[in-house]
Amino acid sequence: MKERLESLRGELAKQGLDGFVVPHSDEFQNEYLPPSAERLAWLTGFTGSAGLAVVLAEKAAVFTDGRYTLQIREQVDETLYDIRHITEEPPKDWIAGNLPEGGRLGYDPWLHTEKALETWREAAEKAGGELVAAETNPLDAVWADRPAAPAAPIGPHDLAFTGESSEAKRKRVGGSLTEKGADAAVITAPDSIAWMLNVRGGDVSHTPLPLSFAILYANGRVEWFVDPAKTGPDMAVHLGDEVAVRGRDEFEPALWALGNSRVLADPGGTAALVFDRLGKAGAKIVKEPDPCQLPKACKNEVEIEGARAANRRDGAALTRFLAWLAAAAPGISEIVAAEKLQGFRLENDRIADLSFRTISGSGPNGAIVHYSVTPESDRTLGTGELYLVDSGAQYLDGTTDVTRTVAIGAPTAEMRDRFTRVLKGHIALATARFPEGTTGSQLDALARAALWQAGLDYDHGTGHGVGSYLGVHEGPQRISKIPNTVALKPGMIVSNEPGYYKTGEYGIRIENLVCVTPIEIDGAEKTMLGFETLTVAPIDLNLVEPSLLTPSETEWLDEYHAQVRETLTPLVDGETVPWLEQATRAIT
Amino acid sequence: MKERLESLRGELAKQGLDGFVVPHSDEFQNEYLPPSAERLAWLTGFTGSAGLAVVLAEKAAVFTDGRYTLQIREQVDETLYDIRHITEEPPKDWIAGNLPEGGRLGYDPWLHTEKALETWREAAEKAGGELVAAETNPLDAVWADRPAAPAAPIGPHDLAFTGESSEAKRKRVGGSLTEKGADAAVITAPDSIAWMLNVRGGDVSHTPLPLSFAILYANGRVEWFVDPAKTGPDMAVHLGDEVAVRGRDEFEPALWALGNSRVLADPGGTAALVFDRLGKAGAKIVKEPDPCQLPKACKNEVEIEGARAANRRDGAALTRFLAWLAAAAPGISEIVAAEKLQGFRLENDRIADLSFRTISGSGPNGAIVHYSVTPESDRTLGTGELYLVDSGAQYLDGTTDVTRTVAIGAPTAEMRDRFTRVLKGHIALATARFPEGTTGSQLDALARAALWQAGLDYDHGTGHGVGSYLGVHEGPQRISKIPNTVALKPGMIVSNEPGYYKTGEYGIRIENLVCVTPIEIDGAEKTMLGFETLTVAPIDLNLVEPSLLTPSETEWLDEYHAQVRETLTPLVDGETVPWLEQATRAIT
Repeated sequence: MKERLESLRGELAKQGLDGFVVPHSDEFQNEYLPPSAERLAWLTGFTGSAGLAVVLAEKAAVFTDGRYTLQIREQVDETLYDIRHITEEPPKDWIAGNLPEGGRLGYDPWLHTEKALETWREAAEKAGGELVAAETNPLDAVWADRPAAPAAPIGPHDLAFTGESSEAKRKRVGGSLTEKGADAAVITAPDSIAWMLNVRGGDVSHTPLPLSFAILYANGRVEWFVDPAKTGPDMAVHLGDEVAVRGRDEFEPALWALGNSRVLADPGGTAALVFDRLGKAGAKIVKEPDPCQLPKACKNEVEIEGARAANRRDGAALTRFLAWLAAAAPGISEIVAAEKLQGFRLENDRIADLSFRTISGSGPNGAIVHYSVTPESDRTLGTGELYLVDSGAQYLDGTTDVTRTVAIGAPTAEMRDRFTRVLKGHIALATARFPEGTTGSQLDALARAALWQAGLDYDHGTGHGVGSYLGVHEGPQRISKIPNTVALKPGMIVSNEPGYYKTGEYGIRIENLVCVTPIEIDGAEKTMLGFETLTVAPIDLNLVEPSLLTPSETEWLDEYHAQVRETLTPLVDGETVPWLEQATRAIT
Repeated sequence: MKERLESLRGELAKQGLDGFVVPHSDEFQNEYLPPSAERLAWLTGFTGSAGLAVVLAEKAAVFTDGRYTLQIREQVDETLYDIRHITEEPPKDWIAGNLPEGGRLGYDPWLHTEKALETWREAAEKAGGELVAAETNPLDAVWADRPAAPAAPIGPHDLAFTGESSEAKRKRVGGSLTEKGADAAVITAPDSIAWMLNVRGGDVSHTPLPLSFAILYANGRVEWFVDPAKTGPDMAVHLGDEVAVRGRDEFEPALWALGNSRVLADPGGTAALVFDRLGKAGAKIVKEPDPCQLPKACKNEVEIEGARAANRRDGAALTRFLAWLAAAAPGISEIVAAEKLQGFRLENDRIADLSFRTISGSGPNGAIVHYSVTPESDRTLGTGELYLVDSGAQYLDGTTDVTRTVAIGAPTAEMRDRFTRVLKGHIALATARFPEGTTGSQLDALARAALWQAGLDYDHGTGHGVGSYLGVHEGPQRISKIPNTVALKPGMIVSNEPGYYKTGEYGIRIENLVCVTPIEIDGAEKTMLGFETLTVAPIDLNLVEPSLLTPSETEWLDEYHAQVRETLTPLVDGETVPWLEQATRAIT
């Protein structure tokens, strides 16, 4: 890693730059990166899904969030990089404090949103320096063995799963542009394009994304900029006359051609280069969120029914695994467990892939929030330990994501206390009712209050949006401490996943997917919403301390388990049924 | 009002403007306005504390928030103005939809913050028009009988109450400017200046504010721009050598003189004119919040002890009133009740004024959140009704604000249900524990969850900051649905005031002041904070439905009442003692 850092510094000097910002992103501003865009990992060794490095001539720093606090210290050489918490010690402060007076801080305009640039610019100016767009990416220049860009085939996604034709979506979203004062929108988010065109691809692992760009016009027509090698002959039929397929290299010229138009682009989700080109072309830029985001997040009835079905099948696989685990542990390894679970999942109908690499962590590894087991880190599930498994799959009818924490042998009183507090938070959110217009940020504390009472907390969000055979993380909604102004709307699928992590000892997380749904309440004076829990799998009763639960919390747990039992009994094998009976018994 | 609107339109035409924005603000961007700045009330008749009008040639609209929904319809002529909810139907949308293409929308740059201007500018441009600074305020030009600017005397506020000398504050805040890359700060918030200089005045009612401007330098020196007629001969001694007193008219020239400096100004709290002049002068503007805000909000030990003492005296007065009311009602009027309460308060030591006009509302008037009784609206407290009294005072050692809701005769089951849900929310907030770094926005839902479960809510914030013998509303913290990124810090005083309002029938609010305080918890893994309740007054047990309370909620109520009884028994008269005993009895 030292040579890589030094070669980058050499290239910076050549380009007349005093520093360079290396985000974890690609030109699609997409969380899921192909290997060719894993610049941060190549440079620093850090493989987490969120992070950023800033390289100066004399110093460098890597930033990530609480999920990766432990992992980053294992992966990154601290003699080369300062390691910082991305929100508590933000990069802008590090830049402001370390960029030399008059320093030129470079960035690749394909890899940052306009919004991010404002932050870096302000930080650079605070230090008395300036922010400078690099002509070519200096890291790419020194990355000798860089993998090729992905070129997975793209196919149609059937109406039986999407519930709405691409034409209807394009007309609907196109129509919304006019209301926002725009003639066209530049769409660069891969999941937005996949949703809008009802197509799926495979350019990144675990998420069926085609990487491409699009311009949507108010009349519903689309220009789609995509490597023609990716689309098969059936695509033209699927797309119809109103979608014109163009080469990837025609995208930038197409931006220049929008000079006389009012063009919507998302400052928080689209590369700064797009804004630069549109601005230089003379377009009137309408800065608004990606217009596909909200319609995509609000699942229609077909998608919700698909999610229910996918979660039932997924829950059956997970439950078979948990029953197997109850007999097999202690003594098996994290990798064996993860592979066994994958095996059960792969027997399911309509499965295309896992939705992310299974987190299979026992004992202290469970405390690493986004732990990814390797042969070196693999450990055996031991008696008296907790085992945390966070996993999911991509089914054609829905994307799943579920976490269960299981006691191997007898848990300690502390483990039961912590688990029950996490469960109380999970139930508080699952049973929350809230008026239309409420955001996930407003609800976040409900999931934490029971931990806070004991002076405890968890350093990650409480819930993320989940796509429909798309990203297992999607926006715009979120349940988090971080302020978010997007209201929860019926049809949005989010995770409900409070946790607790004791570094070096154990980790706890209870995660179900839930769907926002209207709730009828007698005498209600507002339109009220609540959550329908989609995930169907037992919660380990060995870890529940009933005396900490209120009567209504106990009632929720018993009802949930009754529903799990009823739903899954027909779907699991005969060996699993008695275990399921026992695992879902009422505790009252 | 019709003539006033027409004369304003005439003046707009004369100035070549197609519209004009009339905010509820003055050049100090201060919630509490002197009569000379009550432009919105003069024009529209609406006297609420938050609102805005937009006047176009053919149309006009007035906006306010949920607290004033009822009041605005009573005060404003709907044939002249559209009436809109300021957050649900924001002015920017109305402007974007109604300003004619090419229209020039005017504003007075003394009356808007830079941040607000961005919104109006964007809205005007969306309509194809433009936002234009008016040379002189066209409303002032037609406001014939405009009152004179206030000129109340300003005096020192004693160290025994402030706990920190002005010199220490100026050095401390001045030093913070350097860290922010600024040489000086323009301070225009009257409460910031009062706090920084340890002075109090009387330019607006109920809040001891001197209206003035100041420039603070990094070395702690201050230029204070204030009408010299307001300051007496003792002021020079109090201020010392490092505060230079200048005339109000020297402020604008002083901004021009900052051309070579790095100057901090608050885009959310300082008039746009200040930014305009600094920009034209060539100053490097550092946009940061008013640097006095946060230090002012975090009360020191002397201020906290003062707040405790003030709340004890205030609670004794309120309790004497409640005991009197229990005997006198039904049959007395809202005005008589408010005057009686004021009488008890005025017997207190160190009282300077009420902290706002007492809200004394019975039956349907209680449902008007910021109800202000007039001889026309006055009604008699009737049996079977609720009576809501929201009041407070300015004591030299602290500002108070408290709301109690009382049943006159027997309440209905619905009233008891609603009151108990409000109480559950109040207790949830009072007993909340949360890690350092938590904002009021994160906690807001805790106060609403019990109402939400029944499909109910209240359309106002849950808590506002409270000054120390200063504004009864102060920032930067707030407990509200509205996202706020300012963490709650030890020493901050905020109100805890959930409510419920049934239009045309009754209103409920339970408000105590609380102080953020560190909380020691065995085994805590984070620095935890919680609230110390400062307000000391009984909560009406006739309105509590014990079966709706959890054991820990009941425990809180009994403990609170035990503390109220113990604290107030020595402070109230002999007649009140037996009533207090009964009113604070344990319900278990």
